[in-house]
Amino acid sequence: MTDILLRNDAGGIATLTLNSPQSLNALSDAMLAALQAQFDALATDTDTKVVILEGAGKVFCAGHDLKEMTAGRQAEDDGRAYFYDLFTRCSRVMQSIMRLPQPVIAKPHGIATAAGCQLVATCDLAVAAHGTRFGVNGVNLGLFCSTPMVALTRNIPRKQAFEMLTTGSFIDTTKAEQLGLINRAVDHDDLDAAALEMAQVLASKMNGVLGIGKEAFYTQITLPLEQAYEYTGEVITANMMMRDTEEGIAAFLEKRAPDWEK
Amino acid sequence: MTDILLRNDAGGIATLTLNSPQSLNALSDAMLAALQAQFDALATDTDTKVVILEGAGKVFCAGHDLKEMTAGRQAEDDGRAYFYDLFTRCSRVMQSIMRLPQPVIAKPHGIATAAGCQLVATCDLAVAAHGTRFGVNGVNLGLFCSTPMVALTRNIPRKQAFEMLTTGSFIDTTKAEQLGLINRAVDHDDLDAAALEMAQVLASKMNGVLGIGKEAFYTQITLPLEQAYEYTGEVITANMMMRDTEEGIAAFLEKRAPDWEK
Amino acid sequence: MTDILLRNDAGGIATLTLNSPQSLNALSDAMLAALQAQFDALATDTDTKVVILEGAGKVFCAGHDLKEMTAGRQAEDDGRAYFYDLFTRCSRVMQSIMRLPQPVIAKPHGIATAAGCQLVATCDLAVAAHGTRFGVNGVNLGLFCSTPMVALTRNIPRKQAFEMLTTGSFIDTTKAEQLGLINRAVDHDDLDAAALEMAQVLASKMNGVLGIGKEAFYTQITLPLEQAYEYTGEVITANMMMRDTEEGIAAFLEKRAPDWEK
Repeated sequence: MTDILLRNDAGGIATLTLNSPQSLNALSDAMLAALQAQFDALATDTDTKVVILEGAGKVFCAGHDLKEMTAGRQAEDDGRAYFYDLFTRCSRVMQSIMRLPQPVIAKPHGIATAAGCQLVATCDLAVAAHGTRFGVNGVNLGLFCSTPMVALTRNIPRKQAFEMLTTGSFIDTTKAEQLGLINRAVDHDDLDAAALEMAQVLASKMNGVLGIGKEAFYTQITLPLEQAYEYTGEVITANMMMRDTEEGIAAFLEKRAPDWEK
Repeated sequence: MTDILLRNDAGGIATLTLNSPQSLNALSDAMLAALQAQFDALATDTDTKVVILEGAGKVFCAGHDLKEMTAGRQAEDDGRAYFYDLFTRCSRVMQSIMRLPQPVIAKPHGIATAAGCQLVATCDLAVAAHGTRFGVNGVNLGLFCSTPMVALTRNIPRKQAFEMLTTGSFIDTTKAEQLGLINRAVDHDDLDAAALEMAQVLASKMNGVLGIGKEAFYTQITLPLEQAYEYTGEVITANMMMRDTEEGIAAFLEKRAPDWEK
Repeated sequence: MTDILLRNDAGGIATLTLNSPQSLNALSDAMLAALQAQFDALATDTDTKVVILEGAGKVFCAGHDLKEMTAGRQAEDDGRAYFYDLFTRCSRVMQSIMRLPQPVIAKPHGIATAAGCQLVATCDLAVAAHGTRFGVNGVNLGLFCSTPMVALTRNIPRKQAFEMLTTGSFIDTTKAEQLGLINRAVDHDDLDAAALEMAQVLASKMNGVLGIGKEAFYTQITLPLEQAYEYTGEVITANMMMRDTEEGIAAFLEKRAPDWEK
């Protein structure tokens, strides 16, 4: 039996690989549970500084598992309770990504559709392979991508999000970068190296500083301006009081490398 | 006497044509009333799946009717009550577009200024003719485009919106697409076909699904993240329980066309 | 002794020049106090219609004064109270820019980092010299740019802001314009002329109208849609009742220049 979700750890970087190529890495009950378990573990894993999320096989992720969902209709309530629970579990996985202390880099290739596109939108950063196609095309089956929409509309402008959601059309990496859905695209052969390079840059930062910053990022972004400044004023003051920050600033002023705790 | 607003219905697509070319399709009292009446009718019109909004003559829409507004100054209160009522009616038209169950495609050409630019920003989608110029240039007359600003700043980034509003400068279709104000631009000769093609794609979707999605789109977009996920979790669960959605998913899994209600 | 902040007034345009080239125009206690004093004065200065903010020497502004901050650690509380007060004063300067009745044009060249990048993001408009590099790179020293983040994330998309904040990488003017951080870039030799031209366009508008618009801009931008329309409906009605607006509209209809109060 093969694990549905692989994890590889090296140099403070955890790589999670969606590993169900035959189902296009669908976010089945099992896959969601495996992701949630990993994110729960990572939430308190101080050895891991960065997370990369990738997919095995030909595509990154094609969204929910439609066969499994259809089977759910056999229940007495025609599946209603199961569906609501499924989407709640999926939304919990997405929000867990945002609440992790580590930055999470999505590394899509091939196709990222529906909840797969939502994963890309939800991750803090995204490096894609040229040729990747992004869509929220549930509308084509009669199932509007309402939950993926939450993540997508917090990444790209309204009219472009509305078009993707209602027409079911796909965008390529050039458009995805222009709109803000991904940070950059590279040739497929360079994808591993490009994602790793970004992860290594992040892993080289002072212990704890990215966790402070990531939490503050999502907390302040929807606050009224004055509250956002009050809150971040407290965050940056606490940051200033850290031993390694004092050392980092001293090292900069003395033009030497900082002596940070590992 | 010619109708100030034309309506043509074909294939589930309603095309509304601002038809006052001599006034550059100004949003006069009569035009606003005609638009409101059409939108009120469309709100419960289950035969219409998509709306296109276009302008007759040389331009799409040049904003409010300045002559009519100036005449309003003859009132005892120098027009204050009339102006407030006018802007309230105009804002109601704009919000009615967003509340319609149908997607609304703006189809600007020539010029879209002030409340005309607001119409483009307010519609869910926009396909423009190359050469169209967009502006919120009331500032040049001493009347800051405060109400159009509401729609514009929810479409394009802050600094670019601020520049348009305070300098009164225009942007072209290339810039409008880059900033997110329109979905795309085509040659003027291709405008009818391009807007119709987009409308037909939308009209081909399952009955009701675009209304579900559109309502959820604008409802969730300003909610805090956790609430947005709770809300859309309920929306997508209800969507799953629809007979045609069950059929759409089954058809997809069976690689056949769905047998949807017309 | 040279003033740390220069002010030049001409034609209704106040140019503020950060004038501490040896410290890369760092936002020291003295610089923040000088800026606050000027913004407080400008808040009631009806002769000034536009403000330009530039930096003397090789760069626009490199952020906070790290030497001064390090000296602050000598206090009994290791500087905590000083740091919190410092960031509070800095955030007050930033919010004062947004509350000024005049539009403020940032005019960066060379480098705009950390709180220097925040200044660019905070100003209403920005014209940059080609070659300017923008960064929020405190993370490299172990001090996450939490307060600059407030301004940055209200200017550019999430993933691009997150990348700048966590990797400490810089963007050039092409990227800055594409993302919405600046309005445009020109050759360094043309920077004075380009910023002045934009300022003159703004200064030519009707007295008071830009103040009305700027206040409404930032007030409505975070309001729920319906409230935003109610509020701006009142703003634009009051604007209509101004003598010079009546004259501006009349002049437009009569195809003549408006006779506005100077």
